[in-house]
Amino acid sequence: MAGLQKSFIREILKVTESPDVISFAGGLPNPRFFPVEEIKEACSRVLKEHGREALQYRTTEGFLPLREQIADRYALHGVHVSPDQILITTGSQQGIDLVGKIFLNEGDRVVLERPSYLGAIQALGLYQPKFRVVTLEDEGCDVEELRSQALTGLKLMYSVPNFQNPSGISYSVSRREEAAEVLAQTNAVFLEDDPYGELRFRGVRAASMRKFLKDQAILLGSFSKVVSPGLRLGWIAAGAAVMEKLIIAKQASDLHSSSLEQRVVHRYLLDNDLDTHLSRIRIAYGRQRDAMVHMLDTYCPTGVTCTRPEGGMFLWVTLPPGISSMNLFNLAVKENVAFVPGHPFYVDGGGDSTLRLNFSNTDEARIEEGIKRLGRAMCRLLEQGTPVTRPSAK
Amino acid sequence: MAGLQKSFIREILKVTESPDVISFAGGLPNPRFFPVEEIKEACSRVLKEHGREALQYRTTEGFLPLREQIADRYALHGVHVSPDQILITTGSQQGIDLVGKIFLNEGDRVVLERPSYLGAIQALGLYQPKFRVVTLEDEGCDVEELRSQALTGLKLMYSVPNFQNPSGISYSVSRREEAAEVLAQTNAVFLEDDPYGELRFRGVRAASMRKFLKDQAILLGSFSKVVSPGLRLGWIAAGAAVMEKLIIAKQASDLHSSSLEQRVVHRYLLDNDLDTHLSRIRIAYGRQRDAMVHMLDTYCPTGVTCTRPEGGMFLWVTLPPGISSMNLFNLAVKENVAFVPGHPFYVDGGGDSTLRLNFSNTDEARIEEGIKRLGRAMCRLLEQGTPVTRPSAK
Repeated sequence: MAGLQKSFIREILKVTESPDVISFAGGLPNPRFFPVEEIKEACSRVLKEHGREALQYRTTEGFLPLREQIADRYALHGVHVSPDQILITTGSQQGIDLVGKIFLNEGDRVVLERPSYLGAIQALGLYQPKFRVVTLEDEGCDVEELRSQALTGLKLMYSVPNFQNPSGISYSVSRREEAAEVLAQTNAVFLEDDPYGELRFRGVRAASMRKFLKDQAILLGSFSKVVSPGLRLGWIAAGAAVMEKLIIAKQASDLHSSSLEQRVVHRYLLDNDLDTHLSRIRIAYGRQRDAMVHMLDTYCPTGVTCTRPEGGMFLWVTLPPGISSMNLFNLAVKENVAFVPGHPFYVDGGGDSTLRLNFSNTDEARIEEGIKRLGRAMCRLLEQGTPVTRPSAK
Repeated sequence: MAGLQKSFIREILKVTESPDVISFAGGLPNPRFFPVEEIKEACSRVLKEHGREALQYRTTEGFLPLREQIADRYALHGVHVSPDQILITTGSQQGIDLVGKIFLNEGDRVVLERPSYLGAIQALGLYQPKFRVVTLEDEGCDVEELRSQALTGLKLMYSVPNFQNPSGISYSVSRREEAAEVLAQTNAVFLEDDPYGELRFRGVRAASMRKFLKDQAILLGSFSKVVSPGLRLGWIAAGAAVMEKLIIAKQASDLHSSSLEQRVVHRYLLDNDLDTHLSRIRIAYGRQRDAMVHMLDTYCPTGVTCTRPEGGMFLWVTLPPGISSMNLFNLAVKENVAFVPGHPFYVDGGGDSTLRLNFSNTDEARIEEGIKRLGRAMCRLLEQGTPVTRPSAK
């Protein structure tokens, strides 16, 4: 399965390499907002003031002052985590892997949202659990489905409650409470991945599930979408008992994350105002999202719907029943526009008439042109009335 | 087991934190030789010239020009690996983990040297194989032991053929050939970890086992000891079929290693002469090794022996039979000198009268003073005739 998905994504990326193609396929933040000068400044200062420490082996847990900054940021949002409950990881992707490593044995039941993040399907899938799914609705997962899954003995639930990848959906406050109530009656770990939470351009932040679930919830965070993904820095926040095991797993996996980059991000956060930086990103992504939604409303044929996320980087489009996004992809490529068909995000199959659009990495003018092209491809597909076909195993 | 070792090493590191203690315990390269200025220069240039690329997500395989540099370096040493047979990892430690992840199922037989690298015991141990051991002799592993292990159906052998951690032992040319001959008749993967190969201050480099075993050998390499460990950059070199799986496992583990640091090391290698840099390290480590051996000969009681490595960072000391290095540790700490007792390096128990000394991270004058103190502790222990006790499970 992992092999299939990798090749599939590779094929898509090959297609999108051409400069003629407007790609909504990737999951990339907009490099226009990377704080290149500030990171350069931070690198110089760290290497000047603490060069030898920054280039030496350090502890597995990570650079304490950086962990303190993360704890302080959580506190701002009403989440109480102490620095020793935080482990620095190589992106939040590594957090998923480490949690899988310490918790999952072959055959354990793991609940995913339907659709779910590809990287989690891949990382957790390597530990050979039995995946179960709960449908993602407009306000979060279907709680009745979760309730019936909970009866079967769950080990873990993986969720992205804010501006989910791929759907852009966020859990409402009441849906969080209801889901937490069900999970609190189980021994399942709730793995809350929140790479996009800081990218809210509209509406009000809802509480982390940790508020309701305490140490039953493990939080994953990342600097990828707020500072830079190339630095590969993220973190796990977990209670003491789990943290002890995570540290052992992290040590076995790669000893620790980059000493230099941990100090550089720490320095960057000291010398710059993160909220000023974030507000620029939020304004731009908000505009890009609005442009995309508007263009979809304008250029797509009747029966095509999309989510209306209040933050993050993705929109989720549903085609009329029986219309295949894989077929659409083949037509769209001829129009020089690309996206990710929805099928791979469904561990139990299906999703054939859905697709993911990224709006963070394309400026407004290109979004308009790209969605026009996509709309043309949709119209052609609907005229053809092409039968549904599944992506090939290639 | 992983938990035990972690706590044990932690206790040791706590002891060595005091500035009064001369520590031969860590496995750290000497920070005096970190190219701080050059890395600072490389950071600035990369961020100036390719800032947005360096801060963005990149491919899992790693930065191609860096992989080309690694392939060129291998070619210099007569090892033929193409850049697409190289995957950049988060230190070579991650290489061990990824190989474990794709090859090992619970109960698989894995051969380790006796003694073996702690990080490999930890990383591979998490996949719950059955560890088997082959004794490490002066010229490499005991081939007869390897032959009898080979009859039982091996999945993997992990080895550090150059200046092994912890023993400092290197495989002779003939021992490599003999071991390869045995392994070639099995389906076992030979995992050759070579973090210290470039740190040869005496003698002649012997060929990689890949010369004899071709794609049956997977190579791990690292910039940790030649440039900086804090950057956490290493690599795996493997044949195409294995590489495909490794890339999937790497992608699931952390997507890719730092884009910035890959470009920084690439830039560093372009703008500086690595061999000039290495020759400074080699000269210093050679002197430190000589000082340590000389001092051990001078100050240690009769019956204490040590290895005579031609490179690397470690010496291996054997106490007279029945004398416990754990007891010695407790006395040595009172003399303000520290080392790592040998027992944890033995997966099958034993090693109670052995210990590891690091010579890379202590200057000559401090080595003299430290070994004097160690000699005093040894003399006291021998006078006491203390019975052997095993390290506690704490």
